Amino acid sequence: MSDSNELRVAVLGVGVMGADHVTRITSRISGARVTVVNDYVTEKAEQIASQIDGCRAIVDPLDAIADADVDAVVLATPGSTHEKQLLACLEHGKPVMCEKPLTTDVATSLDIVRREAALDRPLIQVGFMRRFDDEYMRLKALLDGGELGRPLVMHCVHRNAGVPSYFDSSLIVKDSLVHEVDVTRFLFDEEIASVQIVTPLSNPAAPEGVIDPQIAILRTVSGKHVDVELFVTTGVAYEVRTEVVGELGSAMIGLDVSLIRKSAPGTWGGHITPGFRERFGRAYDTEIQRWVDAVRAGINIDGPSAWDGYAAAAVCAAGVESLHTGLPVDVQLAERP
Amino acid sequence: MSDSNELRVAVLGVGVMGADHVTRITSRISGARVTVVNDYVTEKAEQIASQIDGCRAIVDPLDAIADADVDAVVLATPGSTHEKQLLACLEHGKPVMCEKPLTTDVATSLDIVRREAALDRPLIQVGFMRRFDDEYMRLKALLDGGELGRPLVMHCVHRNAGVPSYFDSSLIVKDSLVHEVDVTRFLFDEEIASVQIVTPLSNPAAPEGVIDPQIAILRTVSGKHVDVELFVTTGVAYEVRTEVVGELGSAMIGLDVSLIRKSAPGTWGGHITPGFRERFGRAYDTEIQRWVDAVRAGINIDGPSAWDGYAAAAVCAAGVESLHTGLPVDVQLAERP
Amino acid sequence: MSDSNELRVAVLGVGVMGADHVTRITSRISGARVTVVNDYVTEKAEQIASQIDGCRAIVDPLDAIADADVDAVVLATPGSTHEKQLLACLEHGKPVMCEKPLTTDVATSLDIVRREAALDRPLIQVGFMRRFDDEYMRLKALLDGGELGRPLVMHCVHRNAGVPSYFDSSLIVKDSLVHEVDVTRFLFDEEIASVQIVTPLSNPAAPEGVIDPQIAILRTVSGKHVDVELFVTTGVAYEVRTEVVGELGSAMIGLDVSLIRKSAPGTWGGHITPGFRERFGRAYDTEIQRWVDAVRAGINIDGPSAWDGYAAAAVCAAGVESLHTGLPVDVQLAERP
Amino acid sequence: MSDSNELRVAVLGVGVMGADHVTRITSRISGARVTVVNDYVTEKAEQIASQIDGCRAIVDPLDAIADADVDAVVLATPGSTHEKQLLACLEHGKPVMCEKPLTTDVATSLDIVRREAALDRPLIQVGFMRRFDDEYMRLKALLDGGELGRPLVMHCVHRNAGVPSYFDSSLIVKDSLVHEVDVTRFLFDEEIASVQIVTPLSNPAAPEGVIDPQIAILRTVSGKHVDVELFVTTGVAYEVRTEVVGELGSAMIGLDVSLIRKSAPGTWGGHITPGFRERFGRAYDTEIQRWVDAVRAGINIDGPSAWDGYAAAAVCAAGVESLHTGLPVDVQLAERP
Repeated sequence: MSDSNELRVAVLGVGVMGADHVTRITSRISGARVTVVNDYVTEKAEQIASQIDGCRAIVDPLDAIADADVDAVVLATPGSTHEKQLLACLEHGKPVMCEKPLTTDVATSLDIVRREAALDRPLIQVGFMRRFDDEYMRLKALLDGGELGRPLVMHCVHRNAGVPSYFDSSLIVKDSLVHEVDVTRFLFDEEIASVQIVTPLSNPAAPEGVIDPQIAILRTVSGKHVDVELFVTTGVAYEVRTEVVGELGSAMIGLDVSLIRKSAPGTWGGHITPGFRERFGRAYDTEIQRWVDAVRAGINIDGPSAWDGYAAAAVCAAGVESLHTGLPVDVQLAERP
Repeated sequence: MSDSNELRVAVLGVGVMGADHVTRITSRISGARVTVVNDYVTEKAEQIASQIDGCRAIVDPLDAIADADVDAVVLATPGSTHEKQLLACLEHGKPVMCEKPLTTDVATSLDIVRREAALDRPLIQVGFMRRFDDEYMRLKALLDGGELGRPLVMHCVHRNAGVPSYFDSSLIVKDSLVHEVDVTRFLFDEEIASVQIVTPLSNPAAPEGVIDPQIAILRTVSGKHVDVELFVTTGVAYEVRTEVVGELGSAMIGLDVSLIRKSAPGTWGGHITPGFRERFGRAYDTEIQRWVDAVRAGINIDGPSAWDGYAAAAVCAAGVESLHTGLPVDVQLAERP
Repeated sequence: MSDSNELRVAVLGVGVMGADHVTRITSRISGARVTVVNDYVTEKAEQIASQIDGCRAIVDPLDAIADADVDAVVLATPGSTHEKQLLACLEHGKPVMCEKPLTTDVATSLDIVRREAALDRPLIQVGFMRRFDDEYMRLKALLDGGELGRPLVMHCVHRNAGVPSYFDSSLIVKDSLVHEVDVTRFLFDEEIASVQIVTPLSNPAAPEGVIDPQIAILRTVSGKHVDVELFVTTGVAYEVRTEVVGELGSAMIGLDVSLIRKSAPGTWGGHITPGFRERFGRAYDTEIQRWVDAVRAGINIDGPSAWDGYAAAAVCAAGVESLHTGLPVDVQLAERP
Repeated sequence: MSDSNELRVAVLGVGVMGADHVTRITSRISGARVTVVNDYVTEKAEQIASQIDGCRAIVDPLDAIADADVDAVVLATPGSTHEKQLLACLEHGKPVMCEKPLTTDVATSLDIVRREAALDRPLIQVGFMRRFDDEYMRLKALLDGGELGRPLVMHCVHRNAGVPSYFDSSLIVKDSLVHEVDVTRFLFDEEIASVQIVTPLSNPAAPEGVIDPQIAILRTVSGKHVDVELFVTTGVAYEVRTEVVGELGSAMIGLDVSLIRKSAPGTWGGHITPGFRERFGRAYDTEIQRWVDAVRAGINIDGPSAWDGYAAAAVCAAGVESLHTGLPVDVQLAERP
């Protein structure tokens, strides 16, 4: 590989997720390097830039996107800034890997989809990293291979030990359910028609006013049923489990039992991966490596598209609506451009 | 044990289930023997009676109940005959172990409950055998011990390889869901407030006109959420799985992995128990032994009561109603006598 | 069942095991009752007898065997008394279910085998209860069905949380390994040709002078290899695991994972059955029920024979010899009468 | 990262393993690129070189090592050529990642160790990739954390579906057992004192004259016991399982159950990873990334050393000797330079 085609990446937002992406691209990804970092906490960006050969901190995110030393952009900034930054990427014709959400509302997401569609090729990939996880890929292969027949039902569990203090009831839908929405669309290759949120007895350990757990019931356009337990204050660990039930059988991933220990008197067991970084760290590596390869090959995306980001947003918006009534809410999708 | 207090049992109905009970009492249960059998197919009753020392076939079920040689009764007759037979048991003051359903409708079930309540002690036990299964008992002990905190959510799976040809959509509620209804009431010690039945895309292997799978969503009086996948034509095996999620953790039973085999090229796995007799055979033994012991001790029941049978019927009736609308239906229980 | 053919059993030795057998026969076994109990602690025998209708305590074990009110005998006495008691049973022609060991040395075991062989039908069954355990029976069926091809290798693990203070190094062979010896002979239907005991680094928690763990290496007559980890002071729980490796695949039992719990922060797991009574309690029930049925049917044994007891003793004697040298020791079996 | 310090790697030997390393370094490893490839099949080397920017094929392996465009070397050539190539690497002062075996006999391995020791810093890393596998690293961490107490016993299983036609009985020791030898030394941090190879009944599917399965019994210097089932013609899949038993508990890795499927009638299960590339592919990635990072940081090795390669060779040589006698053979290690 000659060094002239090594991809020069700007990483915008270097919080936990963005800093992980910087480390990833610098230390484990072939064919790319970080040339620009940006964060609204400028000291943080400067501190990170100083540790990487040939990397600068740029204060204004739009300047970072426009910079001549940048071939492609990773957005790990707050969702509220995505719209403006994505539009800048489209304007400069720069491929962008955008962490979810695409934008913070359905209308602007759709606008982004339409503006990108007006170009001759896609520029935006959305960071639904589960599509790159080994277990989900094996489950997808099993379904596509027909071994389970047509899928009819799916059961999902999404549990966190805890969440940041700013979490509220609707963030459980927009930030947690959104992953299962994408998993559903990825595994079943179809859109979601309606959402219902059922609210059981709430966990006393949940922050004041936050309804947790929540049960989401999705129905796809063809009538497949998906139920999702969302429980983000379990105090236990990070647990993500998926079971698909088809006409010919069922399959489950996520039991998380790689090392079995018997040591405390009378017990057996093991450790559950503590968080999403441990559980999906390798999926992120694969996601970024494949995105880098796609950008260098000129096809720009190899993963979820802006449309996937928009569709997930539309489903979650319906979910938030249902959160208040407990009744099923239909999802209205625009025609795909 | 002197032979004067060996319990003399009449078994009414000697189809698959009743014949199992006859074998059970004759061959594996201590302190009881079958003295009378009855079936509307009289040849079958006679053939069974002829193989057991001191056992007679009696043609009329009410005569069998009344017989002087009968201390207690096992009802394994069709549900439609239960009401009359239970009333006869009450009239003669004979303890009865009644296979589910108590009766075929809510009103008559309630009537039975009230008539029994007018007596000085209970006579009727209902055959919800899962309460006697080791795994359910361990799960109940875990909950009662407080290790999971207060339960908030439960996920149940109830799958059959196939069902008899007379099965219809409402029997999936009345015959399959009824077990999960009892499991819910048993594990949580509270009544169910509402039921919703969601009907996904149906399995093409299901009989014409039968909606299968179905998803039942139960809400208990205190607000606990229970979802149940009912799928009775999977073509795979008999699978019953339960996961309880509480404030402090979760627990799952039913993974069914006692023997692990690696033999076909590239695969590992094992056999799933083919049906309820294999899965719950020992629970039936325990149920009957404990019932025999209770009757001999004069307390008559050691397990689900007539009220449990009535409450399950009321929930299932609401379920059948929801089957047609897809909306939640409230359960109306009479005051407990 | 008429009461005239209910089997009248004398239970000799009412320590933990014998008392369990009394409860078992009295409360859970069909067709038998305990009419006589005996123990060298006479108060214990009397106390137990007083709780059972129609049961007497008899001070002398040989009187108990000879008693006119006794049809068959269960021996749960110390092994050192077995020879005399078994000879009395043979003399009186009374079927006997003898807890292991048959006798305490190879020569007297062989003598018992030969004296019984001189009778017209067997009288002695030996208490290797694993043959009646569901998992072992399923493994045996898998092997006999040919699904794994010819077995070549077996790995066994036998762990106790702890052992009584009188345990010494050779008891680990005679009391623990003996079960795996019988399992090997049961599953493979052939004799064992040699034994080697390897002694690793010892557990500091083992009693002074006791070598624990030990590794036993058995070779069958046809050349099959069996290794057994014997570790009786683990401090964890009772763990018994068996894996058979054949020409066409392998199978494992004993992972002991029926209830999976996730509650302590970051962990998942469950409880291991604490001891042999919990692990094999049902196997004992099945063993005794089948023995009772066999005696009542006049065939007297339905399980391991005196020869099985003798062969196990011969293998264990070779094991004790190897314990001192670490070298393989050949097993010399007499011709089977 | 400036391009001046990107590591330029020569890959010698581009068979299955070497070609994987070329792909790995080119597509997934950060900070390195392949500048030279070599193979005794020159067309293969040329074909691979032609697909990579800035990469040449060089016919003579020693020329490839000496090339000015090469900073470091990966040896994936046949073991018989390693000695000469390693000496060339030492002579030119170039770091080398050498696939096992270090050399094909103990004497030359020791010579390599001594010549490297005469330098001021190490140059040779040996390709025991299991040390970089997540499960082994978690097991190592568990042991080092003291949760299991001092390890006493380890059980290993090493099964292949099949092996190439040139495999013979001693290759099972030198090519398969060698991994468990390294795992033992890695997990226990001590040398192996003796080896015994037991040969059970052989698999009829094994090639003519090949003894398979074999059981290896290792004893460490402190007295820890390790047994290893080596079975390379199972016809099933690639299975690698390890259980460590310590003073305070046990732990097992390798059950390989990430996706559980229930589809064929009456069965449950999943797929076993078919071969070492699928099972340990990520361990290879980690191994090479960490080696590249170490070489670029000037410390040259971050993994098994030449001594580890020599010690494994010495144990396997003793194993081959035991293969003929079945008796334990002591391992004689030279003093570590």
